[in-house]
This record gives sequence, structure tokens and C-alpha cells, in this order.
Amino acid sequence: MEFVDILGYVAGLLTTLTFLPQVIKTVKEKSAKDVSLNMFLIAAANQVLWVIYGVLKKDLVIIMTNVLILVLSLTMVFLKLKFGRTTASPSDTL
Amino acid sequence: MEFVDILGYVAGLLTTLTFLPQVIKTVKEKSAKDVSLNMFLIAAANQVLWVIYGVLKKDLVIIMTNVLILVLSLTMVFLKLKFGRTTASPSDTL
Repeated sequence: MEFVDILGYVAGLLTTLTFLPQVIKTVKEKSAKDVSLNMFLIAAANQVLWVIYGVLKKDLVIIMTNVLILVLSLTMVFLKLKFGRTTASPSDTL
Repeated sequence: MEFVDILGYVAGLLTTLTFLPQVIKTVKEKSAKDVSLNMFLIAAANQVLWVIYGVLKKDLVIIMTNVLILVLSLTMVFLKLKFGRTTASPSDTL
């Protein structure tokens, strides 16, 4: 395995971990009022495109990374819908 | 330009836009209590690795995408530090 591949896996692991602190924080605090629903909807849609891109490029780093982020993104969409409405306001959905 | 490249640019554009709704929401509401600081610190560190990965792989999609996300991540770190402490609690930094 070359250096660039190891770097890719490390970056991929970090990318995968990016949404994890938000998931943990939201689960613990049961509050997602300040969290943007659109951010995680865009992320989820985007992960699907990146998985297809990874498949076409035969790039396992891209594929593995984005499947895992997709799961975390959908988890945050669920948590936002569950805990994001404690203080309802029109901008809550932004 | 092949289909896979166009797909990459579309995915890259969406990736770039991912953090934008959160930046807009936080600027408008001046509140980031529920937003995870660690998420954006990890994202910023990670974007640097992805830029290096993109340079080594000579992949312009990866490079361009991650430079822009780096800027948005650092913007959110700034906004979290500015607006995230309205209700101070130990878990604010998670």
C-alpha cells in the first residue's frame, strides 16, 4: 500500500468521524434546535453521489467513507426531526 | 469531460454546499449552542488531509472541494466560539 492510499484511509476515517460528535452531542442533550436540517439532507443526498463516483473511479476509500457518512447523516436527519422542534420557528428548517 | 468527472464536480459542488445552510442558520439566529464544535474542528483538520490526498492523486475535484469546505468549516468554528456559549455547559464543546 502506497503513502497516498494510507493518507486516503486516514482522511476517510476522519471524514467518517466528522458527524459523530454532533450525533453524540444531540443524543446526549436531546436538543437540535440550532442544527441545520438542510445540512444533513444535503449531506445524505451527496453521499449517494460520492458512492457512485467512487464505484465508477474504482476508489475504495471514497466508497467506504461515504457509505458510513450516509448512515450518520440519516441518523442526524432523524435526530433533528425528533429533537429540533422544541422551539418552533420558520428558520428551524434552514 | 467524461460522465464520471461531471458526477464528481456535481458531488463536489454539493459537498461544498453541505455546511452552507448551517453557516447561514447560525449567522441569522446568532445561536450555536446545539452545534458540535468538535464536528467542525475535525472537518477542518480533515479537509487539509483531503487537499494533500487530492494533490498526490492529481484529482482536481478533491482539491477544489476540500479547500472550499475548509473555509466553511473554519467559519463555523468561529461562529461556534462566538455564538455557542449563550448557555454554558460542559457538553458545549463536544
